[in-house]
Amino acid sequence: MTRTDIARRVYNHTWKLDPIVRSLLDTDFYKLLMLQMIWGVYRDVDATFSLINRTKSVRIADEIDEEELRAQLDHARTLRFTNKEMIWLAGNTFYGRKQIFEPDFLAWLENFRLPEYELFKRDGQYELHFHGRWHDTTMWEIPALAIINELRSRAALKSMGRFALDVTYARAKAKVWEKVELLRKYPDLRISDFGTRRRHSFLWQRWCVEALKEGIGSAFTGTSNVLLAMDTDLEALGTNAHELPMVLAALTNSDEELRASPYRVLEAWQKYYGGNLLIVLPDTFGTASFLRDAPDWVADWTGYRPDSAPPIEGGERIIQWWKERGQDPKDKLLIFSDGLDVATIEKTYLHFKGRVRMSFGWGTNLTNDFKDCAPAHNDRLKSISLVCKVTQANGRPAVKLSDNPEKTTGDPKEVERYLRVFGEESRVRQPVLV
Amino acid sequence: MTRTDIARRVYNHTWKLDPIVRSLLDTDFYKLLMLQMIWGVYRDVDATFSLINRTKSVRIADEIDEEELRAQLDHARTLRFTNKEMIWLAGNTFYGRKQIFEPDFLAWLENFRLPEYELFKRDGQYELHFHGRWHDTTMWEIPALAIINELRSRAALKSMGRFALDVTYARAKAKVWEKVELLRKYPDLRISDFGTRRRHSFLWQRWCVEALKEGIGSAFTGTSNVLLAMDTDLEALGTNAHELPMVLAALTNSDEELRASPYRVLEAWQKYYGGNLLIVLPDTFGTASFLRDAPDWVADWTGYRPDSAPPIEGGERIIQWWKERGQDPKDKLLIFSDGLDVATIEKTYLHFKGRVRMSFGWGTNLTNDFKDCAPAHNDRLKSISLVCKVTQANGRPAVKLSDNPEKTTGDPKEVERYLRVFGEESRVRQPVLV
Repeated sequence: MTRTDIARRVYNHTWKLDPIVRSLLDTDFYKLLMLQMIWGVYRDVDATFSLINRTKSVRIADEIDEEELRAQLDHARTLRFTNKEMIWLAGNTFYGRKQIFEPDFLAWLENFRLPEYELFKRDGQYELHFHGRWHDTTMWEIPALAIINELRSRAALKSMGRFALDVTYARAKAKVWEKVELLRKYPDLRISDFGTRRRHSFLWQRWCVEALKEGIGSAFTGTSNVLLAMDTDLEALGTNAHELPMVLAALTNSDEELRASPYRVLEAWQKYYGGNLLIVLPDTFGTASFLRDAPDWVADWTGYRPDSAPPIEGGERIIQWWKERGQDPKDKLLIFSDGLDVATIEKTYLHFKGRVRMSFGWGTNLTNDFKDCAPAHNDRLKSISLVCKVTQANGRPAVKLSDNPEKTTGDPKEVERYLRVFGEESRVRQPVLV
Repeated sequence: MTRTDIARRVYNHTWKLDPIVRSLLDTDFYKLLMLQMIWGVYRDVDATFSLINRTKSVRIADEIDEEELRAQLDHARTLRFTNKEMIWLAGNTFYGRKQIFEPDFLAWLENFRLPEYELFKRDGQYELHFHGRWHDTTMWEIPALAIINELRSRAALKSMGRFALDVTYARAKAKVWEKVELLRKYPDLRISDFGTRRRHSFLWQRWCVEALKEGIGSAFTGTSNVLLAMDTDLEALGTNAHELPMVLAALTNSDEELRASPYRVLEAWQKYYGGNLLIVLPDTFGTASFLRDAPDWVADWTGYRPDSAPPIEGGERIIQWWKERGQDPKDKLLIFSDGLDVATIEKTYLHFKGRVRMSFGWGTNLTNDFKDCAPAHNDRLKSISLVCKVTQANGRPAVKLSDNPEKTTGDPKEVERYLRVFGEESRVRQPVLV
């Protein structure tokens, strides 16, 4: 109405903090699905989550201020699920199913708060660890990553003038829209937003999600971000993550148990969920060994999410495996979610079109692609490969092998043992970009 | 970020419409409570609702444009309850009770849309009628009133410059805050917002509600506006209105039945609701006759809402009546809701303090008090006494007598008959200001 709303301006001046995470629903939907199972079945298990910056060349601790980081983490710890949010979780239909969350679990969730954190600097990086019960620490993954990524963006933007900022966002918007126009050519595509953890900022993620909703219409199937799903009446999407097999593997007492553990996860999962939530994440200890040793019933699951193998190669391997087990791939679903951009989506889609159902979970390159957007070259706007992984379970080291050795995490001696148990077949080293 | 967000500015330029009512929850809570009963018990009853401007001196049809009015009414007819809204209605606790709305009713409500309207001009006023099933037409009352009131505000503000607007809102805010400071003296007060229908605008109502929430804290018990209740995590408040006894009276076939009809309403109501929702609205055909003829069980209800008698006189009469029936007024509740402002709230509160529980439903003088706020005197910012009343039920005229003859509505011959049946005892003519 007026150029300057004085009250608002002064209110803004006295802000102590512009919170990055304002709601406990500002997380990925699969965290809530996993949380219900972790709380239900593994209530006494301790798990430590730790920040890991795979882009070592970026010295995060030099880029963002420790006090600001603490203020944001502390603010996230003040959050509770609100009345409206609890009602929505209880009443909404997820994956076609009402009351996917059980009343006991929701009653516990109502009092949930994020647990304490441990933070210190080492060699230009932040050591950030979350110790405690698995059902508490697991919930830090997404907000911790979102906070650090957005603090990086804010630091990068801080010195820019008003026009430089305007141009930066204008170019970033134009860039997203170019992608929209490319994807529009394929109305049968199924794309969803998986970009919460790596987003440039919350507001920017919302812009991207709304742009996709308007731009590609029914080809946009939803978002992994629960808050955005609620607020924009989109489907909340996601299934499960590496932490489940990683923790269950760490808790085993022999090589035999270790080899069987990936299938124990699936047994537990299918007691809770069905239909399109029966998605296998096969690469935790290498897809080749997973497929080789899988019991026959695994082939009855709805689909696979190959997450670290090259998409075409990884998809072909799974299709072949389905065929060997008498399954028709046309009834099956492949969810691609690793480092996607328009080119890989297009190529993968055209390759498999008509042979298998597909869905693409688009992350970093959707919600944090500011390459060449700033008027002056700004390396700090470039997204980095930052993850928050389970590193210990009940005091024992947790390991992830992955199909890409660059993504291996865990104590080197344990990694060696896991490689001995699962084998190294078809692991392919690839650069980790996002 | 920049002074002018060009995309937003251009988007604004191409707006066809800035909708006044953007959600079917932007209505009073009691409409939904009544609707459930009307749909459940009186599903086949037709009822016509009609706009009535009791402030004849204001020629609404000269103030607001018919095309704009039609565009807003048409837009309201496009609305449906959204997914999030339905989930909230099903899952929220209202008046301490879960699932106050039954699944069958909610299933029907999910497809609800506002029915057609009839609109034409006569003598500088709009004739606006809603014909059809009671369970459809009743839902027009609040949005129709909110639309006309906000179109009046927009018309009044249209010619004002940027600074004049800024000063107008600044003064209006200062005025609300003065009221807050006066009311703060009485932390035991219980005040709620009942101002949806007469509000200056939706955004202004939201400002007032949030100001009360911050300003008087726990003395602010909630809002009748369901959308604001949901969005600001406040209690949704309200019970029932004159339309219930008016329609039931119109459907009777003899004077005897007519005399008994106000108690039939209560019988139907208590099959649906209990506790603090057992509030009698006694003045539809005069409070004196209502109390005189009331069966004993009516005294067991939680409270009364004297809505047209002067508050102290009306309250005393009801307290006396409770005592005569062996009830302790200290256990009872009086809800005052007629033309309240700070002075009447304060006076009434101090008068009854310690003798009865009280609650104040504050309407027009909370959400539409712009008196002396505009830099240039502007009569068109003054609120008017506009109502939307049931006028016919199954083709028969509907009548309201009220304790204030100025508020009488209905066919003169029928009014005469009602006066004969119910009597004219203690009716007091008072100016109707809001």
